[in-house]
Amino acid sequence: MAVGLSTPKQLLPVPGIQLSASKAGLYPGKKRNDFALIELNEGGIAAGVFTRNRFCAAPVTVAKQNLAAAVPRFLLINAGNANAGTGTKGIKDAEKICKQMALLAGCDASRVLPFSTGVIGEPLPVEKLESQLDSLYKHLTTADWLSVAEAIMTTDTIPTACSKEFRLNDETITLTGIAKGAGMIKPDLATILSFIATDINIEQSLLQATLLESAEKTFNRITVDGDTSTNDACVLLSSRQANNQLICSENDIGYCEFKTALIALMTELAQSIVRDGEGATKFVSINVRNGKSTEDCLVIAYSIAESPLVKTALTASDPNWGRILAAVGKANASELDIEKVSIFLDDICIVDKGERAVDYTEQLAKDKMLQDEIDINVDLGLGNATETIWTTDLSYEYIKINAEYRT
Amino acid sequence: MAVGLSTPKQLLPVPGIQLSASKAGLYPGKKRNDFALIELNEGGIAAGVFTRNRFCAAPVTVAKQNLAAAVPRFLLINAGNANAGTGTKGIKDAEKICKQMALLAGCDASRVLPFSTGVIGEPLPVEKLESQLDSLYKHLTTADWLSVAEAIMTTDTIPTACSKEFRLNDETITLTGIAKGAGMIKPDLATILSFIATDINIEQSLLQATLLESAEKTFNRITVDGDTSTNDACVLLSSRQANNQLICSENDIGYCEFKTALIALMTELAQSIVRDGEGATKFVSINVRNGKSTEDCLVIAYSIAESPLVKTALTASDPNWGRILAAVGKANASELDIEKVSIFLDDICIVDKGERAVDYTEQLAKDKMLQDEIDINVDLGLGNATETIWTTDLSYEYIKINAEYRT
Repeated sequence: MAVGLSTPKQLLPVPGIQLSASKAGLYPGKKRNDFALIELNEGGIAAGVFTRNRFCAAPVTVAKQNLAAAVPRFLLINAGNANAGTGTKGIKDAEKICKQMALLAGCDASRVLPFSTGVIGEPLPVEKLESQLDSLYKHLTTADWLSVAEAIMTTDTIPTACSKEFRLNDETITLTGIAKGAGMIKPDLATILSFIATDINIEQSLLQATLLESAEKTFNRITVDGDTSTNDACVLLSSRQANNQLICSENDIGYCEFKTALIALMTELAQSIVRDGEGATKFVSINVRNGKSTEDCLVIAYSIAESPLVKTALTASDPNWGRILAAVGKANASELDIEKVSIFLDDICIVDKGERAVDYTEQLAKDKMLQDEIDINVDLGLGNATETIWTTDLSYEYIKINAEYRT
Repeated sequence: MAVGLSTPKQLLPVPGIQLSASKAGLYPGKKRNDFALIELNEGGIAAGVFTRNRFCAAPVTVAKQNLAAAVPRFLLINAGNANAGTGTKGIKDAEKICKQMALLAGCDASRVLPFSTGVIGEPLPVEKLESQLDSLYKHLTTADWLSVAEAIMTTDTIPTACSKEFRLNDETITLTGIAKGAGMIKPDLATILSFIATDINIEQSLLQATLLESAEKTFNRITVDGDTSTNDACVLLSSRQANNQLICSENDIGYCEFKTALIALMTELAQSIVRDGEGATKFVSINVRNGKSTEDCLVIAYSIAESPLVKTALTASDPNWGRILAAVGKANASELDIEKVSIFLDDICIVDKGERAVDYTEQLAKDKMLQDEIDINVDLGLGNATETIWTTDLSYEYIKINAEYRT
């Protein structure tokens, strides 16, 4: 059902970053890639952001800990099992697999980061994973981004990946990223996992700050069902193999171009996750502008995006704009003056300063609602803040997938 | 689909309160009661609570204003049109109908309160309503609670009403209440409207305080889809025709019994609204106990109740408890210690201090999930606060009703 998506084509290798995927049999009866290894060269650096869910999964705990302790060399990622809600045994299992990998490669175990996605509450099948490590390690190559994108899928209908490149003086800088699963919309309690690599020569703390800021504007601006997974993680690796002069501050040459390319790549990945959201039939951008603050814009945008009534009206292509108006009104914004609020479907004004627009006709709005891609624009008329988030509708298919899973 | 509900039987007349219903033709093609009048005797008093949605409907604005200005004599309630999103014309329309009623009865227009529920953004059909006022006024009787309960229905499948009585010295005190529509779960953007009457002799400010507190524990403890209507209102009338000594404070004789009966009645009405929620197949009580604060208990309870993943698991009777655990973890509670959290389905422990309970089996949980009525109990192990809310599942039928409405 993915809205306006196709299998990613040209994925650019990133110098210094090698990958491989294998079939560990974590989906019984299915011959598919479900386990992946990513290697970062010595001299490379990494940054990471992780779920805010307090029931965070064992691999998240271990990955955060290891990332704080050392520069990672390896990322191990499995689908089919989230290793969440598994208590101290889950931690031990995640640590065990890291240790095995470290033994094989001759590095410290703290230089391996584990990631898992899949069903919650089942013990991690450690032996199945261990039996694949040799093969994963042997088959590392810079070319295999697509296989790894496939290996981290759960019920995504399509692998999510893209590449960007830009020129920095005489150097070509590359960014390639993969991602999976929108929040907890996936039936197996899946997750946003995203792994992005670049070769730009940049200082680690700046890389971390840039990832944080970019995630805030991209992965943290999407919602399908408002659920936050126990396993969300996004890691940005840099091999630093490009020959640009080391970027140490926001004012250094190339930083602005890098950040622009990173946000473009992460926006594309984040939007792809929404487009491939469970049962999605629409891709909806919600733009709230002229608010008093970023927080007010966001609280109103999410109130619209997460309203089941707005979502079902979108499914039906029904211009039932009262539902949008009510979602604006119920949001807990610190400042809202109804008489200043205008609401548009794309460019069609439906509410003009708190009342139905004089030249509004249902037919005009209906034509807009029939589109696969729709903008809902809200003008608060109060200040200068503007925020955009992306979401989908709520269809029969969503219920079907989520109610029938496991039964 | 109403879970465990049947048409209310014995509705007790309340001395001093008269009612009538009529067919104003607000549902074209349907011969049904859609307009109602409630009269409060001279000497009676009223209290009210209204929606917090900032896009509140015209009748809400007028009713709040009139209730602040005078003791009401009449309540006028129509279904089929919410008179919301209708701007200054909406206000004038609501005022006009109040004025007509006042003219007919020879009272000030501020003594009439208007209430509307139905579709948003359409002008109120004032003439259709005006043409019924004479007949409504002529047919007032103390007996007709059920007809009025029917008149305020939108797509409720069953009228919601109940009565309570208790002895206060030698006096029988009666409470009868009606209600409709759960939040904004209804396809026509309906509303909680509730009208409750009693004959107890009580001081007005105490009546208002008691209503506020009781609404907080009843109507404000239910959620179907997390949407808050533009038209929510609950009015409590007292004819004060009982001969008990005037109750002026919480310590006066009879107050405690009255409040207990009122909360029991409002709990029954609120739960009925959930049981008759759009597409409901389950009635779910979510109890969060031993929290640090009421707010923490509520934020966790709502996080579970409004998670589409928990709701679809309920539809499927699937004991996918990881979804409950993740909903607890994502809630924005000020204090949460995962290692102290236990979760139960009824009496079956699924999570024991942050980990899967040792004696948990899927079959035990499945048996519980198959029930029509389920308790989800969360023990936070941190303090003494406890809160309960009520909700339903999220079924195909919900999508069907809300996606197909108006199309």
